Amino acid sequence: MRIKIIIPNASKEFLASQIEERRRAARHGVDLDVICLSEGPVSLESGVDEALIGLALLTEVRKAEQEGYDAVVIDAATDPGGRAVREFADIPVTTGLESALLYALSLGDKISVVTSLENSARLIKDRIRTYELQSRVASIRFANVPVLDLGHPARTVKEILKEARRAIDEDGADVIVLGNTGMSTVARMLQEHLEVPVVDPAVAALTLATALVQMGLSHSRRCYLPPPEKDVLGEAFKDWEF
Amino acid sequence: MRIKIIIPNASKEFLASQIEERRRAARHGVDLDVICLSEGPVSLESGVDEALIGLALLTEVRKAEQEGYDAVVIDAATDPGGRAVREFADIPVTTGLESALLYALSLGDKISVVTSLENSARLIKDRIRTYELQSRVASIRFANVPVLDLGHPARTVKEILKEARRAIDEDGADVIVLGNTGMSTVARMLQEHLEVPVVDPAVAALTLATALVQMGLSHSRRCYLPPPEKDVLGEAFKDWEF
Amino acid sequence: MRIKIIIPNASKEFLASQIEERRRAARHGVDLDVICLSEGPVSLESGVDEALIGLALLTEVRKAEQEGYDAVVIDAATDPGGRAVREFADIPVTTGLESALLYALSLGDKISVVTSLENSARLIKDRIRTYELQSRVASIRFANVPVLDLGHPARTVKEILKEARRAIDEDGADVIVLGNTGMSTVARMLQEHLEVPVVDPAVAALTLATALVQMGLSHSRRCYLPPPEKDVLGEAFKDWEF
Amino acid sequence: MRIKIIIPNASKEFLASQIEERRRAARHGVDLDVICLSEGPVSLESGVDEALIGLALLTEVRKAEQEGYDAVVIDAATDPGGRAVREFADIPVTTGLESALLYALSLGDKISVVTSLENSARLIKDRIRTYELQSRVASIRFANVPVLDLGHPARTVKEILKEARRAIDEDGADVIVLGNTGMSTVARMLQEHLEVPVVDPAVAALTLATALVQMGLSHSRRCYLPPPEKDVLGEAFKDWEF
Amino acid sequence: MRIKIIIPNASKEFLASQIEERRRAARHGVDLDVICLSEGPVSLESGVDEALIGLALLTEVRKAEQEGYDAVVIDAATDPGGRAVREFADIPVTTGLESALLYALSLGDKISVVTSLENSARLIKDRIRTYELQSRVASIRFANVPVLDLGHPARTVKEILKEARRAIDEDGADVIVLGNTGMSTVARMLQEHLEVPVVDPAVAALTLATALVQMGLSHSRRCYLPPPEKDVLGEAFKDWEF
Amino acid sequence: MRIKIIIPNASKEFLASQIEERRRAARHGVDLDVICLSEGPVSLESGVDEALIGLALLTEVRKAEQEGYDAVVIDAATDPGGRAVREFADIPVTTGLESALLYALSLGDKISVVTSLENSARLIKDRIRTYELQSRVASIRFANVPVLDLGHPARTVKEILKEARRAIDEDGADVIVLGNTGMSTVARMLQEHLEVPVVDPAVAALTLATALVQMGLSHSRRCYLPPPEKDVLGEAFKDWEF
Repeated sequence: MRIKIIIPNASKEFLASQIEERRRAARHGVDLDVICLSEGPVSLESGVDEALIGLALLTEVRKAEQEGYDAVVIDAATDPGGRAVREFADIPVTTGLESALLYALSLGDKISVVTSLENSARLIKDRIRTYELQSRVASIRFANVPVLDLGHPARTVKEILKEARRAIDEDGADVIVLGNTGMSTVARMLQEHLEVPVVDPAVAALTLATALVQMGLSHSRRCYLPPPEKDVLGEAFKDWEF
Repeated sequence: MRIKIIIPNASKEFLASQIEERRRAARHGVDLDVICLSEGPVSLESGVDEALIGLALLTEVRKAEQEGYDAVVIDAATDPGGRAVREFADIPVTTGLESALLYALSLGDKISVVTSLENSARLIKDRIRTYELQSRVASIRFANVPVLDLGHPARTVKEILKEARRAIDEDGADVIVLGNTGMSTVARMLQEHLEVPVVDPAVAALTLATALVQMGLSHSRRCYLPPPEKDVLGEAFKDWEF
Repeated sequence: MRIKIIIPNASKEFLASQIEERRRAARHGVDLDVICLSEGPVSLESGVDEALIGLALLTEVRKAEQEGYDAVVIDAATDPGGRAVREFADIPVTTGLESALLYALSLGDKISVVTSLENSARLIKDRIRTYELQSRVASIRFANVPVLDLGHPARTVKEILKEARRAIDEDGADVIVLGNTGMSTVARMLQEHLEVPVVDPAVAALTLATALVQMGLSHSRRCYLPPPEKDVLGEAFKDWEF
Repeated sequence: MRIKIIIPNASKEFLASQIEERRRAARHGVDLDVICLSEGPVSLESGVDEALIGLALLTEVRKAEQEGYDAVVIDAATDPGGRAVREFADIPVTTGLESALLYALSLGDKISVVTSLENSARLIKDRIRTYELQSRVASIRFANVPVLDLGHPARTVKEILKEARRAIDEDGADVIVLGNTGMSTVARMLQEHLEVPVVDPAVAALTLATALVQMGLSHSRRCYLPPPEKDVLGEAFKDWEF
Repeated sequence: MRIKIIIPNASKEFLASQIEERRRAARHGVDLDVICLSEGPVSLESGVDEALIGLALLTEVRKAEQEGYDAVVIDAATDPGGRAVREFADIPVTTGLESALLYALSLGDKISVVTSLENSARLIKDRIRTYELQSRVASIRFANVPVLDLGHPARTVKEILKEARRAIDEDGADVIVLGNTGMSTVARMLQEHLEVPVVDPAVAALTLATALVQMGLSHSRRCYLPPPEKDVLGEAFKDWEF
Repeated sequence: MRIKIIIPNASKEFLASQIEERRRAARHGVDLDVICLSEGPVSLESGVDEALIGLALLTEVRKAEQEGYDAVVIDAATDPGGRAVREFADIPVTTGLESALLYALSLGDKISVVTSLENSARLIKDRIRTYELQSRVASIRFANVPVLDLGHPARTVKEILKEARRAIDEDGADVIVLGNTGMSTVARMLQEHLEVPVVDPAVAALTLATALVQMGLSHSRRCYLPPPEKDVLGEAFKDWEF
């Protein structure tokens, strides 16, 4: 099984810091490639950031399908490009937040998401409403830690842990979902300190992609209809062909 | 009061067909400019289409704010770019679907949206879940009429009317919201045939923008936080400065 | 455009204190008349108060329609008489709470209503359930200030402001809706102190009425059916004719 | 135990037709009085009808409490005056729809209400939203039978039965709640024809009042606060003293 | 009317302590028998406890129906065996939590349940979701008092009272439902200290059973279908015959 | 990784027919054992059936944990014993319906469950309410095929297919979840006929168990608290020790 992980930002440093973690999370028999975008913001923390990556993300998804991958992972915890990438692809596409929430649903009644910034928290709230999972989410908390610092777990884990504890003690969380990919080290440190399950969205998205391929399932084309063909004008779209 | 209407596609023909309708809908004292995007798809009917317009739409919103407009209308009924454009702007930004739904909420218990294509209907469903207005929406129907034909009302109105009638008779709709902008003529013809109110999203978005300016209100910056500054790499973003 | 504002209590002093505010809120070209009821409670703060104004309110709405007004505003933030007045009238009828909520929905995810008394807060909660907007309402708070003191903003604004701040900081409100009409001065003072939008229900109801007339829309007669004709017995109803 | 049933319309004929039915429904040991209003509409079928009975209904509730009754039943299936009468009274007050729904909740998952007219169906929908019981209600149907014909069960039962069958077969109703009081004969005939429980709101409201008195319970004064004292102006209110 | 109360645990001491309370709660004319199970856990505080009583509980319900009782009460506040016992019986079956919630719904907007242990609180949360009554429940609190101590009200009432006060002051509860049967003395003491209604599930379940028999109603067989006949293997089921 | 699948009925024939299917669904590296209960009903189709298996199911789960398995699958699509088995075990426990729903959530907006009998459909409805996933479920349909016939796919698939088609065409299902385990052949045949994904609960539960072990996750002990120790009386429980 061949899976392509697309980190939807343009930071090659972040990419380099993540490859080993993803290989560690892959189960035996999964052939993995991890890339990032060739252009766009160096991190994904706002609606503006997400609005800027549309073309590059769709281009990479198309390429992955053409290259014969069995599934694509959009490796971000705010689930950018959800409907568009599934309209566009026949192979399964998974994203960090949705995957983590689905596994978390099986582990306890109430889930709290803890993320780095309030901007990201707002994006996550939007997604949870789109998924209609509000009643299972106890809270969405943020720790005021910029995404690009997330590679330095010593600094980050303390702040995240504080919010996770409040989620458990004050909000009634049974399960913690991390609201960022690129936090696998943080996730493991958190799990050592917390008595509830901690779900890492990067791991969850890869695991879900693997499971869907294993089960022979992909997203419903009744839900994600292929887009109507049409002219797309402008220099930026000169290589675009649908 | 100066309002800029941004039609978020790249069809100058569609733009030309709409300007007179928007002026007709503007109340006395509103100084109106209507533009479309310089690049991108020629119509907006899918998640893919929406994913492609991010940069162009944000660029136009920034320009409108710099030019001193009091409000911006994103003239589309699938509400593309919602969070991003509001993170980015201090002036009020309205969109077709949300505006039409809010006015419709004041007119009856249950609303049905009737749009052109199933692809658009799926986008509208996503938005309604994001707005958490599902319980007030009786149904979302589509008539299988491509958007670019919407200028030919004779052909379109019959199909739309059929779905609107089913919304009223079978789904219990008290109010009809049209699920496309560029249908103002259709809207008027529908209203002649239907005994329930018909809300035109193009008219609603302009009216809401006008009302917000009049009341001195704009979107909450607690909800739509300014995005963190960061590097955005690539040729396409060379003029980008946040 | 001619709009009649009906303040649904019998206090001529309150009426006198409000006329200037309403004229200030009306946009150019709106011909405005503001009245109160000839009998009934001098303020509206409870279900009992609301139950006592039925006949007088319906009588005034009918009179307004006969006099040729284009719309009627029921100028109160607990939305008394909602269904009855719309069964009874063909012209648009707007009310303070519903209008303010609808505009607020366009400005942020979560709304808090801050009103004067707990009695009013309970009425507002009932209405929000009827409108099925609970999921968008963060909280309904009250400041223990009697309605008839609301003309003295120095005394009132401090208490209201305290509750509005708690709504923002503790309840997560993105937008504040005032839970009383007759607070326009308070609303402006609050807006100076708060970083989130503050919606005045008196202004919102007038603005919505204006917008509906402008768009040629009125409430759905499928939802608000004309009442069946029937005998109404008793001296109090001797002038009643439906 | 002494219970007063207030039929909230002004039809002495309807009153006369109901007394025997209520006595039949009362359990041993309940001392029952049944009255109607001295003025107002002769039947209750619309929001307008309900708006007209406020003063008369509150007057009767106050009188009942002063006379020492242990509970009051508002004998109507659209639950008029709900909050006001409970603000006003310390003794338990029950109403037809709410009582019937609560008993029905214990009998099956999904409830359908079948009432006489579409106007009443709309009032019932409003109430069910106020009670936040939408998810347990499969449908609200109406049979186009005027309330005042309900005494003639031969004519009525056929139409009601047809709608009840559709509620069961098409809407998935497990339990039928009749949406009118004054239908006890109809209820019994229906029960003979239907394999699911049929709940009569007149019987339910009396049974609930009896149960609350038996358990020593009345409505929460935290929820239904006593109304603030105030001047009530006008001839109609000259005897009003709170 | 003959009603059988089944306390679904195997503690004869607990049974002995409850009989007098149940007789006190029964209205005149109700012929009452109170039993407990012959085997199983001595108290019911967890999902495990509930999973162990299936056979014994069904056996007692069948026996009660064969003995000609008019209704059965499952005297526990976590509503064990709900669907199974109703599939199995034609006579009405009531349970503590559901009965208490339904009466509480008629008394105020928001209900809090206060129970003994967190384990029980979790079971109660599951049930409330099954009943789809979440939006009417303000909170479910527990006081860390083992069930078998509940007979000693002096020790228990203080802890329960503390949680009930927090439910009212912090969670906005209008009505308190006790989350244990076997607390009737506690319930009365609580009611003396609290200004909101306190509903005892043991009393409520008996009162509801009585009311259903009085109204001639039992659970819907459309909802609770008789189970398909089949072989049940094993020594434990040798007397089982359906 | 060692996983034990417990089929929670006592039919050795059914067990024999399923072992090969489960091995086929297991991914490489999973060491699988499949058992059924030693006593109890031969199939699981009703609440009564489920109530009878409590002791046997808990006994098998405890045994599996003692034997060192990494996870347990309760191989049934009505998710019997959910809370109890998780209170009891530290290793992950998955069930058919919940697992299938979670994977289905990732594949489309609306899910329909198609099961064999109306009795099972009712159990499934109860579970979906407990999981608070109603808004994502389009319908729950049944085909009137007894469970024990499910091994004969030629007879079964036609009826199931008919209901699945109606779910897609009439109810708007994007994804089909089969509402029985023991249908893997049926699932594959269905998938050949349907253009939407078909999720087999037996495969989903095994895949989820595998994924949880792989990610090092198990259910939250904050949600599923260990049960209080206590006496369990009676011959049937003589070997019971918690």
